[in-house]
Amino acid sequence: VTATRMIGVDWGTTRFRAYLIAADGTVCDRRASDRGLLGVAPGAFGCVLQEEVAPWRRAYPDAPVVAAGMVGSRQGWKEVPYVSCPAGLAEIVAGTLEIDAGEVGRVRLVPGLTVRDEAGIPDVMRGEETQIIGAASSLGGGDEVVVLPGTHSKWATVRDGRILAFSTFMTGELFAVLRSHSILGRLMNDSRADNDAFARGVRTGGLEGGAGLLRRLFSARTLGLFDEIPGPSIESYLSGLLIGTEIAEATKTVSPPSAVTLISGATLATAYTRAFELIGITVRRIDDDAAARGLWMIGREVARTARS
Amino acid sequence: VTATRMIGVDWGTTRFRAYLIAADGTVCDRRASDRGLLGVAPGAFGCVLQEEVAPWRRAYPDAPVVAAGMVGSRQGWKEVPYVSCPAGLAEIVAGTLEIDAGEVGRVRLVPGLTVRDEAGIPDVMRGEETQIIGAASSLGGGDEVVVLPGTHSKWATVRDGRILAFSTFMTGELFAVLRSHSILGRLMNDSRADNDAFARGVRTGGLEGGAGLLRRLFSARTLGLFDEIPGPSIESYLSGLLIGTEIAEATKTVSPPSAVTLISGATLATAYTRAFELIGITVRRIDDDAAARGLWMIGREVARTARS
Repeated sequence: VTATRMIGVDWGTTRFRAYLIAADGTVCDRRASDRGLLGVAPGAFGCVLQEEVAPWRRAYPDAPVVAAGMVGSRQGWKEVPYVSCPAGLAEIVAGTLEIDAGEVGRVRLVPGLTVRDEAGIPDVMRGEETQIIGAASSLGGGDEVVVLPGTHSKWATVRDGRILAFSTFMTGELFAVLRSHSILGRLMNDSRADNDAFARGVRTGGLEGGAGLLRRLFSARTLGLFDEIPGPSIESYLSGLLIGTEIAEATKTVSPPSAVTLISGATLATAYTRAFELIGITVRRIDDDAAARGLWMIGREVARTARS
Repeated sequence: VTATRMIGVDWGTTRFRAYLIAADGTVCDRRASDRGLLGVAPGAFGCVLQEEVAPWRRAYPDAPVVAAGMVGSRQGWKEVPYVSCPAGLAEIVAGTLEIDAGEVGRVRLVPGLTVRDEAGIPDVMRGEETQIIGAASSLGGGDEVVVLPGTHSKWATVRDGRILAFSTFMTGELFAVLRSHSILGRLMNDSRADNDAFARGVRTGGLEGGAGLLRRLFSARTLGLFDEIPGPSIESYLSGLLIGTEIAEATKTVSPPSAVTLISGATLATAYTRAFELIGITVRRIDDDAAARGLWMIGREVARTARS
C-alpha cells in the first residue's frame, strides 16, 4: 500500500520546518517554528515532533516521516553517519537510519554528506544535501554549481543528480561576529542598505583572487575614516567584501562557472544575485521549497526500495 | 640648553606606557597602566598624563614630552593629521603637533602614517611608526620587512630609516572574535598549547597563497569533528591558521622576504617566530623598547630642528 501523504521535516540548529506532501510531490501543508535543536531538551525530539505534526498524524496515521538536517548529528536526535561524495539519491537513501519514535511512529533520518578537499581536509553538510537533491531534478545534465548562502555557505558541484564535491565558507557567521563584536561593528551607526558601497565591497573582496581578506577587512575601517564610505554604508560594504571574497575563493577551487544555481531565501538571494551579476556570473534562483522536494524524493525512493 | 631627560609616551587605545629617557637614549625609568584612551574621560588627557608622570616632572621640570599612538587620533587628545608614506624621521617630526597641556606643560604629539595600496585603498597606523623608526636605526640599508603582530598586525617595508609602505591585517582581532563569539569558539574546551596543531594551521592557512580563509576557517570545525585535532588543540590550530594566512597574504603583497624583523612582546613573538620558521623565513626580533627608542629619536630631532 502506498501512503497518500508523507511528512518531510527539515530540522536544523535553530529552525524546525515540516511539510505535508502528496504522492505527486505537491506540498499540501507546511509549518515552521523556532524549535530547532537548540530549543529541544535532551530526549525530547519525539515529543516535539509529535506536538508539531499531530494534526497531520491524526489525518494520515500511516504517513511515513523523513527528517533531514542537524537532527541527524551528534547533537541531534540520533547520529547518522555521513555518506561520502560523490553521492546521489541512491547513496543518501542507503545511508538513512530508521528509528522508532514512540507515539509519533517510525522516523527515517537522512544522513549528511562528507568530502575531502585536495589538501585532505574534510568538509561536511547536513540538510543542504536534501535541498540540492531536490533542486537537482530541475538542473541540466552537465556539471552545475549550486550555491546555498548562509551562516555557513555551501558550494556544491552537481552532475546528473549526484553531488560530486562541495565546500563550506563561513561568510555569514564571520559577518555576524564582526558586526556585533569587532571594531568594524562599532563604526556602523544607523546602517542603511547602500548598493554602491556593497558593489565596492564585492570588487575589493575579489582583488587578487580573494587572497587578502585579513588585509582587506581593515579597509572597512579606513574607507570610513577617510569619508570615502559614509558611516551608515559600512555595513553594506562589509557584506559585499565578504560575499565578494567568498565568490573569489569558491570560483578558484570549483572550476570557474559562467552560471550558478542559487538555493536561498529572499534576503540573501538579493545580495548574492547582485554580487554574482557584478562579477558577470549568471544566476538561476531556486526557492526554499527545494527542501520539501528533496524530502519527497527521498521518501519516494525509500518506498520504492522497500517494495523491490 | 639641552634637557638632560625627556619623557616619551606611547599612549594607545587600551594601554598607557611612559619612559624617562636620558640624552643618550638610555631608558632611566618606565611605567605602564591601563589608562589607555578607553580609560580616559573626555578632556582629561592632561590630568591623566600629569598623574602618571608627576614624579618625573618634579625631578625634571624642563623635560620635553613626546607622545605617540592613538592619543593623536580623532578619539584621542587632539587629532594630528596623518603623514603620507614614504616617510622617515624628518617627515614625522615635521608632522608633530605641540599642544599646551596646562600643569603638565607642553606636549608634542606624533602623527600617524597613511599610505594607499595598489587598489587605491587607504591604510593607516598610529604608534607603530614610532616603533619602526626606533627599530630602523638597527636595520641594514636595503629594503627590510618589519612586522608588528597584534590585534591589527602591521607589515612595513623600510629602507634607510624611511617607511616606504605598509599594510594592516586584522589577525588578532579576528582570532579574538572567533574564539569568543563563533561556533569555533564553542568547540574549544580546556584549550592547551599544541605546537603540532599550530603548525598544521600555519600550513593550511598558506595553501593557495592564502586565498581561502572563509573556506579554511571551517576546517577548525571539521578536523575536530573527525577527531583529527583534539578539542583542546583547536585554539592552537585556529591561531596557526590565521597567522599562516596573514603571512601568505603579506608575502604576496610585499615582495617575498627571506627574513623579517619582528617588533613584538614575548607571547606573540613566540607564535610568529614559530610560524615564520615553518615557512622558511628568518626572524630577527626586536623587543618592545623600540617605542622608547623611537620616541627618543623623535625628541632629539625636534630639539635639533628647534636649534637650527
